Amino acid sequence: MGSHGIVLFAHGARDPRWAEPFERLAARLRAARGEPASSVSLAFLELMTPSLDTAVAAQVAAGCTRVTVVPVFFGQGGHIRRDLPQLVDACRAAHPGVEIRCATAVGEDDGVLDAIARYCLDQLDDGA
Amino acid sequence: MGSHGIVLFAHGARDPRWAEPFERLAARLRAARGEPASSVSLAFLELMTPSLDTAVAAQVAAGCTRVTVVPVFFGQGGHIRRDLPQLVDACRAAHPGVEIRCATAVGEDDGVLDAIARYCLDQLDDGA
Repeated sequence: MGSHGIVLFAHGARDPRWAEPFERLAARLRAARGEPASSVSLAFLELMTPSLDTAVAAQVAAGCTRVTVVPVFFGQGGHIRRDLPQLVDACRAAHPGVEIRCATAVGEDDGVLDAIARYCLDQLDDGA
Repeated sequence: MGSHGIVLFAHGARDPRWAEPFERLAARLRAARGEPASSVSLAFLELMTPSLDTAVAAQVAAGCTRVTVVPVFFGQGGHIRRDLPQLVDACRAAHPGVEIRCATAVGEDDGVLDAIARYCLDQLDDGA
């Protein structure tokens, strides 16, 4: 049985430093899973590479039979509601034997929101 | 002494539903702080309102003598490195008696990255 890949799907930006937190996140996930680096990868909607189809194809080539796409976006705007489903459908059509799922955007998760709220409160040095 | 306001600064998008997680985050912070709703507000770089200067002016009008701007961005791209400092400087010039600080983007925080990593792993239903 093949392995289960994760593709962290982000918006992309012109400034290459923008990708740093996503790379740190990928490194964290690779460490947590203890699997080959290829099973956790990044993909971008625009301005950065690889695209989603390239990232998914690389995971399939590395032996993944399941791929979960996690949108690292705060909100479910047009990119997530319209663009991403089309991109995921194209990946499914290209790899009919692979199960490709798509998660809800990370910013919709209560645990993530709690962590952001905690960070915001920490910025108020008087705790008020 | 006046109160300490938080402005959650986000990118903005055309789809109004994009703002929902930011509104949930603001509600969480208001509940945690037990202060007037005006002391936690949202501001957007583009495509949504209010702008940062409008949000800061409203907090100052409501009695805040300190305002902390928290960029709810994953990465420190051009918007955070170039655009935001200029916007914050303009706010400081407009309100010389108010201490206006700017935090690092939430996506740079280890606690936030940990929560996102946990969410990603939860999406793999076999835990692998």
